[in-house]
Amino acid sequence: MQNVVELQSLFKKYLDENQFHQKPAGLYEPINYILSLGGKRIRPVLLLMGCNLFNDNVAQALPASYAIEIFHNFSLLHDDIMDEAPLRRGKPTVHVKYNQNTGILSGDVMLVYAYKFFLQLENKVKIPAIIKTFSQVAIEVCEGQQHDMDFETRNNVSIDEYVKMIEQKTAVLIAGGLKIGGIIGGSSEEDANHLYEFGRNIGIAFQLQDDILDTYGDPEKFGKKVGGDIIQNKKTFLVIKALELGTKDQCARLSGLMNIDSMDENAKIEAVKSIFNELQIREAAEQLMESYLAVAFEHLKAVNVADEKKKILINLSYQLMGREV
Amino acid sequence: MQNVVELQSLFKKYLDENQFHQKPAGLYEPINYILSLGGKRIRPVLLLMGCNLFNDNVAQALPASYAIEIFHNFSLLHDDIMDEAPLRRGKPTVHVKYNQNTGILSGDVMLVYAYKFFLQLENKVKIPAIIKTFSQVAIEVCEGQQHDMDFETRNNVSIDEYVKMIEQKTAVLIAGGLKIGGIIGGSSEEDANHLYEFGRNIGIAFQLQDDILDTYGDPEKFGKKVGGDIIQNKKTFLVIKALELGTKDQCARLSGLMNIDSMDENAKIEAVKSIFNELQIREAAEQLMESYLAVAFEHLKAVNVADEKKKILINLSYQLMGREV
Repeated sequence: MQNVVELQSLFKKYLDENQFHQKPAGLYEPINYILSLGGKRIRPVLLLMGCNLFNDNVAQALPASYAIEIFHNFSLLHDDIMDEAPLRRGKPTVHVKYNQNTGILSGDVMLVYAYKFFLQLENKVKIPAIIKTFSQVAIEVCEGQQHDMDFETRNNVSIDEYVKMIEQKTAVLIAGGLKIGGIIGGSSEEDANHLYEFGRNIGIAFQLQDDILDTYGDPEKFGKKVGGDIIQNKKTFLVIKALELGTKDQCARLSGLMNIDSMDENAKIEAVKSIFNELQIREAAEQLMESYLAVAFEHLKAVNVADEKKKILINLSYQLMGREV
Repeated sequence: MQNVVELQSLFKKYLDENQFHQKPAGLYEPINYILSLGGKRIRPVLLLMGCNLFNDNVAQALPASYAIEIFHNFSLLHDDIMDEAPLRRGKPTVHVKYNQNTGILSGDVMLVYAYKFFLQLENKVKIPAIIKTFSQVAIEVCEGQQHDMDFETRNNVSIDEYVKMIEQKTAVLIAGGLKIGGIIGGSSEEDANHLYEFGRNIGIAFQLQDDILDTYGDPEKFGKKVGGDIIQNKKTFLVIKALELGTKDQCARLSGLMNIDSMDENAKIEAVKSIFNELQIREAAEQLMESYLAVAFEHLKAVNVADEKKKILINLSYQLMGREV
């Protein structure tokens, strides 16, 4: 098994060699730009790990790992337009740096290139199954984004709906990447499905952890401003759970706070947090997160390869959850 | 061979049976809306004809014909956002009827569904080649749209660049559909490539004819207002050719007219047409169009099936060119 750093550097090399130098530059430059903004390349690395569980030839999965990263960045690009986001990883978003039409069209062609890279896989027989898995994932990511937008104007979002939304918007891409990696590596269909379920459950756990850390994280370790979700009035798990568990009075206080934009930021964070604390929302979130984590590891355990090989996936999962291993 | 009306009705039935009733409705309703706006379904019908040249089982090509129609409508949907177009086939465009974010996201998922329908083809072995052809086409359509947008702010577009743009934006999708139809029907690679070249050349001829008819068409027969391109200051073949052939004075007059928006519409149309007439631009356009038409029919002739079977394609081509057959 290759370690995380080795896989990241293998992927980085492939990405550098496969930059978009085609014409017209107006279409392709923005793609290189967004792909250059970096990130930890978690999705492609997990795909490579999925392959590596079954096969020493990890390089054969590079086109698929690039496809997944291109798709992920396509979805960020279009989401940023829809959310009117000015910044992505501290840099101007594509529609700000270039313009909106460029953002739409460069995103469109990225989606096509994702498919094109899957077609470059050596084992052509596996391509239909891989593209089928990927297409299903891509559809769910779009559905998740639609649900997310729909939720903004709804006041009655249930926990089940919220979890389904983060599953579609975030977890299925991780799941699909792991499954595709497994298929490329030569896994059985059953093992590929276990990898999918591992990825799906761990992806939901990551997102719940993200919701928790945004409010309760250590400011020293958390990359963004702690309390950012509260300031932006985001309907995270914490808010939805509080509205589910709260008394009429608590719900009214929380809704009231979420409709104020003029309040001092720290005061608002503290006021919202105190409602969360009254209702033990953090504990509820952690409990749910732990249950997804446990199911995730059950599926990984069921994959029919030596435990030794799975360690890298377990370690990376803990690392991404912000825990020591 | 099935005739045009039979193929249109076969396609219509498949489209009706494969409407998008999934949830969330906010994502899928706009797809049914744009697909319901109609049109002649030329692209899917040509794909079915490509299949029918080699195979009596046309129905097997229906998922691919639907994929092509979905892709075509995806590109219209996103182009309408980029062009800020209020109407499509006399009805409100998707971003006007719904909103821009819906337009972006529903378009995205349409592109994924195009691939998904290709995956439904019975003969799985052929899927990688078909998806490869389609992906190349889809990339070129995006590149063509980017060139089209780039041309709006350029004053030195050459005829070659213009023809390349209409080839990418319009012709390659017709070409790719015919080729994919051929592959599904069981054509040789050589015949599939001849079908591609037939479609590519006829597609360029269609677009040149469109440019000609927009200025010189019979108001009784032409669907849109004759002179519409002139009023909108569109850089069509006629304009680019006139700027290439004209004297300094003629070019200055033409450029001047294209920068006036306050002029009486009919007076503007007449003034621009008189410059075109001085330079015999209509004749130049018709000559180029005829040359593409001739090359198209050479490629159709080279396809290794009985002439009898090709008649339907020749007749449809003439019909689409607005000529009696």
